[in-house]
Amino acid sequence: MEQKMSKWGFKSEKRTVTIRDFLEILKGNLNKNDKRDVIHLGHGDPSPYPSFKTSPVAEESLLNALRSSLFNGYPPSAGLSPARESVAEHLSKDLPHKLSEGDVFLTAGANHAIEVVLSALARPGANILFPKPGYPVYEARAAFSNLEVRHFNLLPERGWEVDLDGVEALADDKTIAMVVINPGNPCGNVFTFEHMQKIAETAQRLGILLISDEVYNHIVFGSNKFLPMGLLGSVTPVLTLASMSKRWLIPGWRLGWIAASDPNGVLKKSGIIESIENYLCITADPATLIQINLSMISVFEYRYEMKYFLKGAVPEILEKSTDAFFSRTNDTLRESADACYATISEIPSLSCPHKPEGAMSTMIEINPLLLEDVKDDVDFAMKLAREESVMIMPGSILGLKNWLRLSFSVEPAILRDGLERIRAFCSRHSNTLQGYMKLESRRCASSNLMHDDC
Amino acid sequence: MEQKMSKWGFKSEKRTVTIRDFLEILKGNLNKNDKRDVIHLGHGDPSPYPSFKTSPVAEESLLNALRSSLFNGYPPSAGLSPARESVAEHLSKDLPHKLSEGDVFLTAGANHAIEVVLSALARPGANILFPKPGYPVYEARAAFSNLEVRHFNLLPERGWEVDLDGVEALADDKTIAMVVINPGNPCGNVFTFEHMQKIAETAQRLGILLISDEVYNHIVFGSNKFLPMGLLGSVTPVLTLASMSKRWLIPGWRLGWIAASDPNGVLKKSGIIESIENYLCITADPATLIQINLSMISVFEYRYEMKYFLKGAVPEILEKSTDAFFSRTNDTLRESADACYATISEIPSLSCPHKPEGAMSTMIEINPLLLEDVKDDVDFAMKLAREESVMIMPGSILGLKNWLRLSFSVEPAILRDGLERIRAFCSRHSNTLQGYMKLESRRCASSNLMHDDC
Repeated sequence: MEQKMSKWGFKSEKRTVTIRDFLEILKGNLNKNDKRDVIHLGHGDPSPYPSFKTSPVAEESLLNALRSSLFNGYPPSAGLSPARESVAEHLSKDLPHKLSEGDVFLTAGANHAIEVVLSALARPGANILFPKPGYPVYEARAAFSNLEVRHFNLLPERGWEVDLDGVEALADDKTIAMVVINPGNPCGNVFTFEHMQKIAETAQRLGILLISDEVYNHIVFGSNKFLPMGLLGSVTPVLTLASMSKRWLIPGWRLGWIAASDPNGVLKKSGIIESIENYLCITADPATLIQINLSMISVFEYRYEMKYFLKGAVPEILEKSTDAFFSRTNDTLRESADACYATISEIPSLSCPHKPEGAMSTMIEINPLLLEDVKDDVDFAMKLAREESVMIMPGSILGLKNWLRLSFSVEPAILRDGLERIRAFCSRHSNTLQGYMKLESRRCASSNLMHDDC
Repeated sequence: MEQKMSKWGFKSEKRTVTIRDFLEILKGNLNKNDKRDVIHLGHGDPSPYPSFKTSPVAEESLLNALRSSLFNGYPPSAGLSPARESVAEHLSKDLPHKLSEGDVFLTAGANHAIEVVLSALARPGANILFPKPGYPVYEARAAFSNLEVRHFNLLPERGWEVDLDGVEALADDKTIAMVVINPGNPCGNVFTFEHMQKIAETAQRLGILLISDEVYNHIVFGSNKFLPMGLLGSVTPVLTLASMSKRWLIPGWRLGWIAASDPNGVLKKSGIIESIENYLCITADPATLIQINLSMISVFEYRYEMKYFLKGAVPEILEKSTDAFFSRTNDTLRESADACYATISEIPSLSCPHKPEGAMSTMIEINPLLLEDVKDDVDFAMKLAREESVMIMPGSILGLKNWLRLSFSVEPAILRDGLERIRAFCSRHSNTLQGYMKLESRRCASSNLMHDDC
């Protein structure tokens, strides 16, 4: 039996390393004798921290749905109608065209939306364009679906805008779509409308779909406003992926969606919508109760007269608290982003080329020449976990070697403590002039350059 | 753009028709002018009916988890530790070996468990054995994973036992696993321990895994007791798939699991467990709140001292109500199964070879020769929906032409009404002697038999 099973080669199976995988590796590397609390800057789950507690509206609406005992049954595969409708209404507020229930498909979180879209699009021979740095679940799902991945760069010197010349050079007639993430994960940037137009025009010229990951929609705290890519759905069809996780601070509720912004009906006519619906029939569903809750959150937010859901008047105070709730999150994140940027700027071996103005993370470049005994980003993360009980994500996991992704959506006091531990780590490992010269000459030798060029 | 997308052939895509798909087709065929309520005997969602309301324990525990605000964050990919542990404890009560947390993987319902297991097992060239009649999500997921499917029969004349000679004939060295569903969906049978032993021994001889779908575990109301296939995990490794959906009557909560009963460690050594864990990292998760709720339901059921979860004493009354709750469900289902069997036996054109003794559905054979204008099972279901506003699932969707699957987990009064509508439909469509002779002679001609043989 064992022999027969072993011959299938399960053990030799390789898969893209995701953020979750690397967090497990880091956890295994923590020093259990360190009496200090572990500081989690390696992934974006703000929900355990008091400053990022979800709105009472969300919890109250789920309580009401549960108390009604009406929502314990199976949901339809694309989601409950009132929930799909309320997401459509919610998104339409920011769009020139009106989305309807049929344009919205509910998923068990945005990771699941990635699964659904890539499973629906994958075709033998097709390729897809992903940003570098990016979000590794895309790579992992594309590999599972045998979808060839090509990476275009995000340009730190241009505020992490898309390298559109690179996109043009990568695409061919087998390219089916490109993915952009705005507000940026992992870079914390927010696209200008002008840049979004250029992206859409490039996609149109190449005849490819635009998949717009807007998981961090409306989480912006810099000068650029958040604008949905669906605004440009008439230029090229846009599939927007998003979720309740970040804005409502309830990632564990697992509720996301795919929304089609496609006023010209290309997605429907070419069968892509049907392919998405087909896949939804054979994959996981978000819990019915939580879908109903979604309708109700939108009720609060958009002042619909749907009081019957709640068997009573919707208290005005909750309705008003919603805006305050969103502003509180963005204000906290702005201060945290500022603190990150300021501290990192003071550490010689690290640099942050672009102050984050959205989402919940930022990219930090390491100069390994200025560090002793830290050979690269993975080594940095492993030693930082061991010595300072701080978890941070190496850029290699996201496609960018010798960078780090720092997630700053933790309690501000904890973030400050974490930044000081990073400062202490870098200072303890900072290189001597002698060591720098040694590394530098090794670097030149290995890059086969004349010494003068170094 | 449209042209470019169309060339990928999304529209020509075909997928196994699932129960959900056919329900949509049936819905479209209902007569809106019929003033009577639609009766849903086409799928097994008991949760809307008063007789199948979930236990207050389940709802109370979810309320407590929600009120604590502690469980809004992301869960780990294989599920929260206390929840995995409590499922392991729960299952171990019926097993000779003790399962641990590491043997249990939480999924977003049992359909999702099917997705995970088939995705983890699929290998180029591999085939898998499924029962006929069966549950079409298996076929749909196998097709998605390019896993070749071979069907063995369940034998109505032997109480829907597995045709083990058929299994032996189908399997070859590329067969990776076989699936059994016990208590039976769609047949409503319950395997004896003797038959289970024969199944396990056959699987052992063939060197294949046993995937045991026990979604209806403990839902038995005939003479055979429910026994988990994991009892035979030392004969051949068993992966058990199950969920909270049916026993706790909360299908919309989407919580299921995969449990490995494998005291010899074959699944671990051959890398299959790792393959399952790998897939879990890139697929949907059940909501964290609902996982915690699961731990608490088990608390009630197994009298653990985990009061801290609930910030108070576990009321004895709730603990005791649990057994009563399970018995109430089984008593209701027993009466409903009896009513189905009795009524169907009285209808000349229908027959039910085996009175259901478990799960929530039964298979009914149609004799199309005794019906006029009803050419097969699909036609039966379509016309029944149109004329009587009763939804029922054609056997063709489950691999058995000219059979019907009737789900009897609806309110008993509604079931009786539905059965009477089926009786009226069959009576109205019953064939004349002349019509019978015509169909019979056509059948003989088309089967190329001598008239005498007919």
